[in-house]
Amino acid sequence: MNEDDVSFERKRPDVYGDAHPKALLRTIEEDGDFLLKLADQHIVSADQFNVETMRQLFRLAAKIESNPKRFSTPLKGKILISAFYEPSTRTRLSFESAWHRLGGDIMSITDRSTTGIAKGECLADVAEMFNNYGDCVVLRDTNAGSLFEMMDALRIPIINAGNGIDEHPTQALADMYAIFKWKPELLAEDNDVKVKIGIVGVPGKMRTVRSFLKCLAIFPQAVEELVIIHDETVTDELFADGQREELEAVGIKLSTETVMDDVLPSLDVVYINAISWEGDSFNTYGKEFHLTAKSPLKESAIILHPLARGEELSVDLDPTSHNWYFSQARGAVFLRMALLTCMVERAERVIDVV
Amino acid sequence: MNEDDVSFERKRPDVYGDAHPKALLRTIEEDGDFLLKLADQHIVSADQFNVETMRQLFRLAAKIESNPKRFSTPLKGKILISAFYEPSTRTRLSFESAWHRLGGDIMSITDRSTTGIAKGECLADVAEMFNNYGDCVVLRDTNAGSLFEMMDALRIPIINAGNGIDEHPTQALADMYAIFKWKPELLAEDNDVKVKIGIVGVPGKMRTVRSFLKCLAIFPQAVEELVIIHDETVTDELFADGQREELEAVGIKLSTETVMDDVLPSLDVVYINAISWEGDSFNTYGKEFHLTAKSPLKESAIILHPLARGEELSVDLDPTSHNWYFSQARGAVFLRMALLTCMVERAERVIDVV
Amino acid sequence: MNEDDVSFERKRPDVYGDAHPKALLRTIEEDGDFLLKLADQHIVSADQFNVETMRQLFRLAAKIESNPKRFSTPLKGKILISAFYEPSTRTRLSFESAWHRLGGDIMSITDRSTTGIAKGECLADVAEMFNNYGDCVVLRDTNAGSLFEMMDALRIPIINAGNGIDEHPTQALADMYAIFKWKPELLAEDNDVKVKIGIVGVPGKMRTVRSFLKCLAIFPQAVEELVIIHDETVTDELFADGQREELEAVGIKLSTETVMDDVLPSLDVVYINAISWEGDSFNTYGKEFHLTAKSPLKESAIILHPLARGEELSVDLDPTSHNWYFSQARGAVFLRMALLTCMVERAERVIDVV
Repeated sequence: MNEDDVSFERKRPDVYGDAHPKALLRTIEEDGDFLLKLADQHIVSADQFNVETMRQLFRLAAKIESNPKRFSTPLKGKILISAFYEPSTRTRLSFESAWHRLGGDIMSITDRSTTGIAKGECLADVAEMFNNYGDCVVLRDTNAGSLFEMMDALRIPIINAGNGIDEHPTQALADMYAIFKWKPELLAEDNDVKVKIGIVGVPGKMRTVRSFLKCLAIFPQAVEELVIIHDETVTDELFADGQREELEAVGIKLSTETVMDDVLPSLDVVYINAISWEGDSFNTYGKEFHLTAKSPLKESAIILHPLARGEELSVDLDPTSHNWYFSQARGAVFLRMALLTCMVERAERVIDVV
Repeated sequence: MNEDDVSFERKRPDVYGDAHPKALLRTIEEDGDFLLKLADQHIVSADQFNVETMRQLFRLAAKIESNPKRFSTPLKGKILISAFYEPSTRTRLSFESAWHRLGGDIMSITDRSTTGIAKGECLADVAEMFNNYGDCVVLRDTNAGSLFEMMDALRIPIINAGNGIDEHPTQALADMYAIFKWKPELLAEDNDVKVKIGIVGVPGKMRTVRSFLKCLAIFPQAVEELVIIHDETVTDELFADGQREELEAVGIKLSTETVMDDVLPSLDVVYINAISWEGDSFNTYGKEFHLTAKSPLKESAIILHPLARGEELSVDLDPTSHNWYFSQARGAVFLRMALLTCMVERAERVIDVV
Repeated sequence: MNEDDVSFERKRPDVYGDAHPKALLRTIEEDGDFLLKLADQHIVSADQFNVETMRQLFRLAAKIESNPKRFSTPLKGKILISAFYEPSTRTRLSFESAWHRLGGDIMSITDRSTTGIAKGECLADVAEMFNNYGDCVVLRDTNAGSLFEMMDALRIPIINAGNGIDEHPTQALADMYAIFKWKPELLAEDNDVKVKIGIVGVPGKMRTVRSFLKCLAIFPQAVEELVIIHDETVTDELFADGQREELEAVGIKLSTETVMDDVLPSLDVVYINAISWEGDSFNTYGKEFHLTAKSPLKESAIILHPLARGEELSVDLDPTSHNWYFSQARGAVFLRMALLTCMVERAERVIDVV
């Protein structure tokens, strides 16, 4: 094996470049008060934030992404309890990377079967244990209610990193952060630009889509139209109770579509989800909703995907300018850095003017 | 979801307050020599310590608990090997939190099946590996002898974090630390106060109780009487060989009792253990020995429990002043911080006068 | 239990002493350029290095081993992704210890079943995730090809920590480092010393032996003769394609032997491998190739073993001067410290003159 076979380049593709976060950063004026308030909140749902808190979070994320080396110590001496009772390497490493980059220490739980919970210990007791051992908890659990059982007993903040089919709020924040980096004017005070967004998936059943829709409802002025692209077989259970009503109440124009290629040419943002887990309906889904470089996408359109992907998203899109899903994954680390810093009472270390 | 639904308070319940460790701290005069000597010892059994070493450990733990932020770097550059071949989140996180709070780094082994031991590697070879890779080992193993097999080959200290049904010495130290925080005068040089202690459990079979009794035998002057509260069915196997004799040899008055409520009104300290693992006898145990807010406890009595708890300890006791089991769990972190610092030759960084 | 039962000594056996790395250090003149170039390479195979790069790596390892405390911060702020999809505590902890000693942070993956890979995620996507989350990847996988699938998508360096039966290059570097520490003159510019090396094992099937042979082929002038000691039953499959030819092409005299004790008295270095995994042929192997203190070893001979060991290497050799396998394991940490520092663009922090 010679040197050429093992050499690699550290260069970044353009889409990851510095230009985008810096443009977003310039668009928003700092107001640290909204960040300081995050020290008293658990992160449970995508709709717990108001517009200004979100804008400030995106600003802080963009500030960190523009110059990560400046933010290597804000969490010094802080301990994260990374509790992934439902296995997930991707989300776990994203949070842990964010925490480590900020200078904090981590204790991981990666297997429910090794914990007291498996032996029937009540979650309030587990929460009490966490109070004593750490400064913040990140929790993923297949049981949607575990989060709420723990919350009441906690005196340190907890982040919902996916609770069953309910929500995954920081994923949705990362989704929005990608959109606003791509088009910062959507967040400007005097914005009159709007985008048409298509979501391939089942809002009633997918936690990432559920949280994403809640985030969109906070920025209705940025949405020209929202199209849910779904298979005919799930029409009846497409939305969960109240989900559609919430979006319409804030004035978002909502439509549904079963033929993806009919609507693709008009979309600015395509949000597509892993659909392989849908069991029996996989083949149908796979055939109908398969995005490739040959799909009739608008030239300027971007694709988002929470990853890991299945067959629904072809790798031939990776080298195209539609690929914002890698940027979305990368940005998630900076978004989480911003959020975590605020949650453990260290916002004053990263705010410009206190 | 609105802000109120997700807000929380960082305030601590009174029982965790600063008053108690500070009172204990004032009671004991520092003598660092006893702490420096811990650098040459493995921690194997609760009876390896003499009175003065324990007093100094409790003093150091109280000093750390009184002002944890002062002690964020003593273990900088030190690596802990956290080897939990028998699964345990609670004890593992307690040790790892202690180590991280002191500024050290950690490598965890949480699964025996992934190690050479599973393939038949001898423990002396594992110990030799540990010598090269870390500065301290914390070991839990269902096999009581693993600890001793490793010890002979180690040139770095090892802590027994539970070896089968044998011992769990740092748990017992944490138990004693809770008692002395509650009533510091028990540790005073001129002490003439004594307490009556009841233990619900089977000393011959439970490692936490075994280690706790060994600790009590080191402070006989603090014990007015010791009552073992047990189910009639285990009378024959209540004590292990020599266990009863050891206690009586140091002058501790020992009695046994099968009806808990008969003795409760006279007890100052009630030490109750998880009993759910007793298999067939669970129902009987659960019925007979179930502590609740309605139990006939002395008003000033405190309850200790090594946790995790089962049905034997009702959650309705949590908000009462009897609840010292949460303080006990919290204090265990500080106790371990004190011990670990001394074991890896960093005592001089935390002693006031060297 | 009294103090004597639990006391231990921190002293190191002579073989681990400071003398050897210092002698090696003095033998080689620093040329940092070769180390700086390692920042653009993945570590895939033992034959990717040239002579001078290896010499400089061994020099740096010896410098670190001579005074480890001087090198506690070069990786500050850097994150290692320690991905052991094939379980291995020994190699994992060796890498993690090296990284921690240099001041870096670590995220571990110890179980393939908890990752997206188990769900069919492509390795290029996993690599893209790693790009975003860490600064270096250490990978062990039973599938020899996983490494190559990841490499193409990586913009951070990856180290092969064992890929199926293919290679384990850092183990081989550690093997060579042990040999050169033992006899630094082998690395001197004007060297005319040579050693006779025996390898007990099957070069075609064992990744540690494969990588070790590739390293030897880089230093042919140090090898008087190379003897492969093997069981008669594997004669046909002893070498993989081209393996023998590679060695002979660089002028290494190669022979094979089936009776170990016939050749032992002439060997300077005996490299023996765990052979217990050979299934049916275990008994034969165990009987024939069992090194003990009674084996007819040259008085000055050293034994190397990649560990963990089985019955092939008797513990009665541990206290003898033949035991260099413990030194080899210990040195592996320093060798990896040297390599890792260079790979993540921090060589200039450890080079004397930049």
